[in-house]
Formats: sequence, C-alpha cells, structure tokens
Amino acid sequence: MRSSQYLLSTLKETPSDAEIVSHQLMLRAGMIRKVAAGLYTWTPTGLRVLRKVENVVREEMEAINALEILMPMVQPADLWQESGRWDDYGPELLRIKDRNQRDFLLGPTHEEIISQLVRKEVSSYKQLPLTLFQIQTKFRDEIRPRFGVMRAREFMMKDAYSFHLTDESLQKTYDDMYKAYSRIFERLGLDYRPVIADTGSIGGSHSHEFHVLASSGEDAIAFSDSSDYAANVEMAEALAPAGERPAATQKMEKHQVHGDELAAVLQPLSVESQQAVKSVIVKASDDIEAEYIQLVLRADHELNTVKAEKLEQVAAPLEILTQTEKATDIEAPYIGVVKAKLPLLVDRSAAHLADFACGANEDGHWLTGVNWERDTPDYTVVDIRNVVAGDPSPCGQGKVKIARGIEVGHIFQLGTKYSDAMKVGVLSETGKHETLTMGCYGIGVSRIVAAAIEQNNDERGICWPDALAPFQVVIVPMNMHKSARVQAAAEKLYEDLKAQGIDVLFDDRKERPGVMFTDMELIGIPHQVVVGERNLDENQVEYQSRKGGEKQKVSLDDCVNFIKQQF
Amino acid sequence: MRSSQYLLSTLKETPSDAEIVSHQLMLRAGMIRKVAAGLYTWTPTGLRVLRKVENVVREEMEAINALEILMPMVQPADLWQESGRWDDYGPELLRIKDRNQRDFLLGPTHEEIISQLVRKEVSSYKQLPLTLFQIQTKFRDEIRPRFGVMRAREFMMKDAYSFHLTDESLQKTYDDMYKAYSRIFERLGLDYRPVIADTGSIGGSHSHEFHVLASSGEDAIAFSDSSDYAANVEMAEALAPAGERPAATQKMEKHQVHGDELAAVLQPLSVESQQAVKSVIVKASDDIEAEYIQLVLRADHELNTVKAEKLEQVAAPLEILTQTEKATDIEAPYIGVVKAKLPLLVDRSAAHLADFACGANEDGHWLTGVNWERDTPDYTVVDIRNVVAGDPSPCGQGKVKIARGIEVGHIFQLGTKYSDAMKVGVLSETGKHETLTMGCYGIGVSRIVAAAIEQNNDERGICWPDALAPFQVVIVPMNMHKSARVQAAAEKLYEDLKAQGIDVLFDDRKERPGVMFTDMELIGIPHQVVVGERNLDENQVEYQSRKGGEKQKVSLDDCVNFIKQQF
Repeated sequence: MRSSQYLLSTLKETPSDAEIVSHQLMLRAGMIRKVAAGLYTWTPTGLRVLRKVENVVREEMEAINALEILMPMVQPADLWQESGRWDDYGPELLRIKDRNQRDFLLGPTHEEIISQLVRKEVSSYKQLPLTLFQIQTKFRDEIRPRFGVMRAREFMMKDAYSFHLTDESLQKTYDDMYKAYSRIFERLGLDYRPVIADTGSIGGSHSHEFHVLASSGEDAIAFSDSSDYAANVEMAEALAPAGERPAATQKMEKHQVHGDELAAVLQPLSVESQQAVKSVIVKASDDIEAEYIQLVLRADHELNTVKAEKLEQVAAPLEILTQTEKATDIEAPYIGVVKAKLPLLVDRSAAHLADFACGANEDGHWLTGVNWERDTPDYTVVDIRNVVAGDPSPCGQGKVKIARGIEVGHIFQLGTKYSDAMKVGVLSETGKHETLTMGCYGIGVSRIVAAAIEQNNDERGICWPDALAPFQVVIVPMNMHKSARVQAAAEKLYEDLKAQGIDVLFDDRKERPGVMFTDMELIGIPHQVVVGERNLDENQVEYQSRKGGEKQKVSLDDCVNFIKQQF
Repeated sequence: MRSSQYLLSTLKETPSDAEIVSHQLMLRAGMIRKVAAGLYTWTPTGLRVLRKVENVVREEMEAINALEILMPMVQPADLWQESGRWDDYGPELLRIKDRNQRDFLLGPTHEEIISQLVRKEVSSYKQLPLTLFQIQTKFRDEIRPRFGVMRAREFMMKDAYSFHLTDESLQKTYDDMYKAYSRIFERLGLDYRPVIADTGSIGGSHSHEFHVLASSGEDAIAFSDSSDYAANVEMAEALAPAGERPAATQKMEKHQVHGDELAAVLQPLSVESQQAVKSVIVKASDDIEAEYIQLVLRADHELNTVKAEKLEQVAAPLEILTQTEKATDIEAPYIGVVKAKLPLLVDRSAAHLADFACGANEDGHWLTGVNWERDTPDYTVVDIRNVVAGDPSPCGQGKVKIARGIEVGHIFQLGTKYSDAMKVGVLSETGKHETLTMGCYGIGVSRIVAAAIEQNNDERGICWPDALAPFQVVIVPMNMHKSARVQAAAEKLYEDLKAQGIDVLFDDRKERPGVMFTDMELIGIPHQVVVGERNLDENQVEYQSRKGGEKQKVSLDDCVNFIKQQF
C-alpha cells in the first residue's frame, strides 16, 4: 500500500474525551472514529488489525472442527421469551419493534437462536458432538459506553456453541476450546492468562476467562507464584489462615469512640485493622427466616460480592443495606458481633482472630478484647472476602500475586440451562430422548485490538506484535521527491517485499522525514526501512525495529531476506 | 471437510413456503434456515458460498484502490436529519430508540455516516480522489420479505463511496467500478448484464445496474440484438416509429359499445389494439395549472411509470386515478382524445397513428377514424411507454430484445446531493473551499448467492459455477464401511486433494450410495469422484461433472491432476 493512496488520518493531539491509552492511540493512529456514544467506524488501519485478529480466531476454530455459520443480528423476541431472558435481561438488551409493531432485539449473544437451529437440525446422536461458531457484530446498550472499542455498544465477537450427549463430551470440547484460545493469544503475540471464572448470569457450572495482562485492566487476577493456578479475584478462594485460632488472653472492654470512619475509631483504641472486624448488612434469601444477614470481615479485607451472592442464606442479586438502622437500630460503624441481632456469616480470616475489636452494637461505642465462642457463640464461617497479595494460594502451592487483566475471552460449560428451556434434544443410541448439554465460548474480537494496545505501547505510540500489525513493514524514503535514486530504490524494495507476500506500507507522501517517522511510530509498524542518499552511496538502507534496539545498516540487495528473518 | 463432522442439513421435501427455486434449493441444500420473516441463519454450506462471493468482491475492490472500512450498523438519527432522509425515507428504515430514548436506526445504507467521516478526515485536495468500501450486514424493514435471501430484511452488502473534486474524476472512478463489477461477475461465472438504470430516490445523475440473467428475474431488461446497449426497461427509450405519420383517410364515426374491457370494445368495431389508444389519468404537478393530466398510449402498449413520473407536467410520486370520473365525469373505458377535458400527453407511438379508435368521451361510446390535428389539435408528444421486443433499439442499432434479470449491483454518480446537505468539502489547490462530488456503488452479496442459483439449477438441485461452490470436489466412496480398500483409497485421495489447496468434501457417512449422490447433486458440488471396489480393480475411480456429460474413468494415480484440469 502507498501512503499517498491510503487514508492515514493520524492526529497530533490526544483527544480530550479518551481516558485510556488504547482509546487515545486508536484515535491518534487513525484506527477508529466515533460516530455516536459507543459506536465507531473502523478506518482502514483499524480494520486491517481487526481482520488479522478475526482470521487467527477463524483458523483456530476451524482447527478444532468448529463449523462457521452466520446468525441474524436482529432476533425475534419469542425465542427469548422461551428461554426466559426477554424478561431477565437488563436494559443492555436493546429491544426494538419492527414496522408491524412486533418485538425484536439486537443480539448481544445468540444462545436462543443457536438452540432453535440445533433443535430443528439435529435429531440423532450420530450428529454429535457439534460445535458451531460465528464472527459477528453484536450490540449491547451499555449505560456508559467508554474506553473506545473496549466497552462499545456495537462490537465484534466470535461466539461459539457446542452440543453434547454427555458431560464427558462437553468437557472434551471445552478442553479443545481452552487450547484453541491459548493458541489464538499466543499466535497474536499477547501476554495472557486463562483464569478460573465466575459463570455469572449466563448460567452454567464451569468457566474460564482469558485475560490480556495490562496494568490498566479492569479485572484483578489472583495467581500463584509457584504454580499454574490463576483465577479472577471474584472467584479465588481465600483460605483460612494456617494453624489454630489463638486462645483468648484479653477480657472484653467497652470504649466510647469518636468519629465514624474505621481508621478514626481504631487509632485511639491502639488496634490495627488486621485485629478488628467490620460488618456488612445484606438482604437474606427467601429460604431462611431472617430478613437480613450480617456479613463479618476483617477490617482490612474487602467483601467479595460474587462469593457473598452465592451463599444460600443471602438473597441474589445481592442487596447491601446502606441504612443499617432499618435492620439493626444501630448506625453502621457501631455494629458488632456481640449480642448481634442478625445471623452472623463470618469470613474465615475474621473467624481466626482472637482478642479483636468490633462495634459494641451501641451507637458511639466499640469493644476490644472480643473473642469468638466466649463472647459470641453463634456464627457460621464462610469465604466472602477478596484474596490479597501474599495470601496462601488456593491451589496449595505458594503465595497469591495479583495482576490486572482485560477480559478478552470467556468459555463456559452451560449444562442444560438453555436446552431444558428450549427443549433441545436428540434420540440416543438406545432410542431414548435425551436433552443435550451445551457449552458456549466467546472472544471479544474488537476488544482484543484495544487490549493489545494497552499491553504494547510506549510514549511514541503503538508497538504492534507482528501478527497484529496493520502493516508488517514500512518503507520511509528520505526526500524521495528530490532524488530519483532514492525513489528508484524505494520503489524496487516496495515491489520486492510485496512479491514475497509481505504487508508493506510505502510512505510515498511529500512530507518531511520527521512527519513520516512520527506517523509510522504512532501507528506502530514493527519494521522500518529508511532509504536515503547517504546510505545508498554504500548500497545500503537503514533498518530499525519499532520495539527499539540499534539502527542497523543492511545491504539493499539483502534487505528482503533480512526483513523476513525479523518476523 | 468430512461429512461426518459437518452439518449437511439437506431436506427431501420442498418447503411449502418457498416460492422461487433459489429459495427452495437454499433450504433443501441446507444453506439457510429461517429465524423469522426475512431473517435467516446462514448454515455452514450457505456461509461457504457467501464468503466466496465476499472474497471476490473484496479482491476486486482492492484492485481498484478502494480502501476497506467498517461503519456501525446502528446509526444516530441526527446525521439522517442533516441529510433530510430521516423524514424522507419510508418505513423500510427501522427507527429505534436506545435505553436513553435517543433516536437511532438500523442502517440500510451509509451515505450519511461516510459523509460525516470524510468531512472530518479529508481536508485537502491532495487526499482525493478517495474510495472507501465495506462489506456489512444491512437491514431494510421490507413490508413483505420473501424469496428467502433474495428479499430479506437483514442482508449482506458491499457498499462503496467515492469522493472527488471534479466530475471527470468521478467519471474515472465510476468507470473503474463498472469494470471491477464486470470482473466480479465474470470471476463468479455468472451470465450478467450491466444496464442503464434509473437513479431513483437515492438521487444523482448517472447510473448502471448489474443484472444476473434468469427467467425468474423481477426486472425486465431491454437490450439490442446488434450492439452492447442494455437498459432496464424502466429506462429504455421508446423511439418514435420510423417515417412520417400516415395521412388521414377515414372520417370520424361514433359507435355505441358494449362491455368495458378493451378487447370487448375493439372486437365488434373490427379494430386491432395497435390501431387504438387508451388513456390513463394522473395527478398533475404543482407547476402547471391543471389538476390532472391525461396520458395517452397505444392500446397494446404499457405505461412506463418511471418515465411518466419524470415529466415536468406530472406529479411525483406518480398518482394514477382509478376513479376517473373525479377528473373527467366519464368512466375510464370511454375516455378519448377528442374534445378532451384534460391536457393530453401522448406517447410517441400513439401520436404516430392515423385513423385510430378511442373512447368518445361519452359513457358507452367509442370513436373510429380519429386523426391527430384534424380531430384533436392540442396535444404534446412524449415517451411514456415500455419498450417491447422488436422495437428499434434506442442505441440506433438493431432491434430490442427483452430478458429478465435479478439486480445484484448498482452504481451511481450521486453528484453533490449528500455533500451539499452535509457540507463535505476540501480546500482546493487554489485555496478555495470546494464541495465534493460523490459516487456510490452497491453489490448485494447475499443476493448474488440466490441469483446464482436461479441461473444455475436443474431438477436435481444446484449446479454451482466453480468459483461459488461450497466445495469444489466431493469424494463419494461406495460402501466404505465394508471395504478397507475403498476406505484407504478414498482417504488418500482426500488428503492429496486437500494438500493441493482444493476445497474437498469427503462423504464418509454410513449412508447408501443413492442417499449420498442425491445429497451431493442437490448441494451442487461441481466435481464428483466415486471410489468403488470394481474400478479399484483397475486402479481407477469414476469422475463426473455436476453439469452433465459422460462419466469418465480416471486412473487413481492421475486423479489429482485430472481434477485440477477441470477448474
């Protein structure tokens, strides 16, 4: 491609409405342009990258015998009524009416459509297992679209669905997908982690997320410093501290306290936050008699809402009381565990304390020297906190480290959630009707582009991994329009690289060298060849990698081979 | 691909709701499945064909330096308000509201989005000309979606847009597109015609449609039997009959007639329909004083509504009066041209008659022996009829033939319709602000699949051209599950063909040969190799082309080369 016939659209200034670096760089490098909130046009440079992701994803799906299909983006409401999601799905589901006032929606996902297809097309166990996928534009009406294509309303996804007679068959395809996803991110040259994940509202029993690691990531990932273990912090088990709980040594004392911030309370009491507990009041589930539940955590720990919501005693979705008086007659900072009015669910670490401090269940007062059993016999121990760095790893090996990641893939074992609701089954070998078990597997194709930039950038712009770069090589001729020799050498190199199937950009604009270097570094083309008069005197050109390193002089005759060795 | 790992989904019965052969065959061959009215899932076989079309289209667009982008499918209303189409576009435009009650639409086309992009990104004449294209899912809320993907609500289109400083530059890109479109249809192996077209509601001045010829086509195409001339019948000029109008020889006589059908009236009068005229009453345009206009045609000719609507005297959109009494006090069959109450616009052929018959402008009566000038001096001659086979060709060479076609592409010179409304301009070389002139160029990617089937089918199913076939070759082994020798030969041939990059389907199902042949002929795979015990005795296999011809025995060792020669 010649720059003069291309639409570069680079920007000098960082757009003020772009908060994160990938959004800024995608705008500055001319990859996307905003059409409306959460809606973007992919300009030529952006689309080239998007297609590279798409092609790698497609190849790896085909390699595990997944069959590509294309389902409609507009979906009829009746199928979603059948699955129950028409009512359950929040306002992210854009519900629309056609010209005849019939209900439709813009697909954020396709479990219903694929279930309808498979229940019609698959009738025998002989046709199983079956994995179908598509790469398609999806829509989710985000309440606050932001971060460019990272959290857009319209985005590109690969979604795959598998159908099975047995859990073993599902597990096998799940494992194949796990490996295919790993290969995809490896081929794209990204630093990633598969992590154990919550199955969330989509339902199901077993799930992994794939994260591209980046300090700007929205998700916290807990991993072991001594094993392969990695899990979303949402899911990582917080083990009980090692050993027995220490014995009680202090007697319980009541203190008047001032202020209602935890730090302000603890400091005059001379208590560290690791030696105090705090409480969170939540709505109880319908299954138990109490209306509210008191969750108790060590004061330095954070409540893990995903874990809390899964407790049978707790209502789902989780409802945290901000006006605690409603449940306890006591203001939040003074709620404690002695003579508690509500059932106590106590985090493992809080339950391991002795001689600890807590609110006195009396406005304006706290207790010190509190001990479980002796002072408060009735409580249940649970895991409801986020793990923190230094915790023993849930896998039993080493300690927890925390990294930040951007979720770009998610694989689920759905079980029969949809196939039960939508009656997806076949005749088995013995002639019995069997409900199928399902898996679903998503990759955020457009999000990968942004995540890759979060992981690969510097002060000059994007540093693409080879597999993702919009162009592999750029030729920058120095003052070509004044030098027939530079022009001839650059043109020949361009043709020679193209002939080798290399994606090359020839910056043939009438621009100063500085403008060209700045643009090409911003766009992040991995390999740069500068053609100039001085080096041509020695029949040489100058090579530089975008990732840094010394500039190298390369013989013009050997340049194509040299470039091929850099990939 | 092995059939056993594929989703064939062929049907024995023709689905009752499929009216045309391509819709029937796409369902029977397992290419598409209906999700809701006008919404289809492309199953693996269908998507393979769709992608082949897509790839050829993309290659030919890139070959003329068009740059690929991807615009959002959901578009904000404000841009369409700017262009005026938010109000002008009919209910085919699906208007939607997001969660914040803001107005959006599902894009049927992208002139507004591209105009916004170009007015922001292109500021200098140096960046021109510029051609951008995308291949994308579109939505048009058809009042009566039908014929499968031929007239679906969600469909795939290639839409391209070009921007220019001068009309000459636009004409050059238009000519490049014309050639690129011709190459696309040639490469796809389709019998097609570029035809001069009406520019319709999208506006603009110059336009061609590309039609795939098929007897089931919705459009009539007029072409010359002696030149390259071809035009949509909507647009083909009907020349005046050669020579002078004959002189009047009869005197005018009035007759009482019975019945109100034209044939019933003419027969007792002993007048041929070529020697009579009929009238159509339409609403006049606001530019003239009269409220209605009387259009006059030879009784055997058809009114061309597109031509009629373009006349300055006639209101657009065309309004044909069915209750003619409202305009003339006379019932329709008896309206004539003598002492007419309305302005007369007379088709060239009708105006060339002498001694003709027409209504008497008196209920129950007709006239014979009528002559222009003598009996009715006040009239205007216009071209308002459809050409018919045998007419002199509008190009001046040969005679008109009529064929039927399916419109699969359309190229337009839009001029400044959108760039004026949306202020798309650049600074010219002399520093002046210049409004750009635009072209737009569409191809119905999904429609091509259906059109190709309309043109290429027989009683057994689809007969794909090589370039479109979901698989190029199918291997049909005879009773493979009982013969290790057949299995070994078939497996080896499969691997050898794959190694040559040939798209091959290996029908390894445990099915009777008859079932396999029926399926493969229905799907329409162009080249079939049968591997059976008997031929293997002579180290041979049997080849047959889907298009017919004799079965041929081919040496197993030479089979790959033989197959490659068939493409």
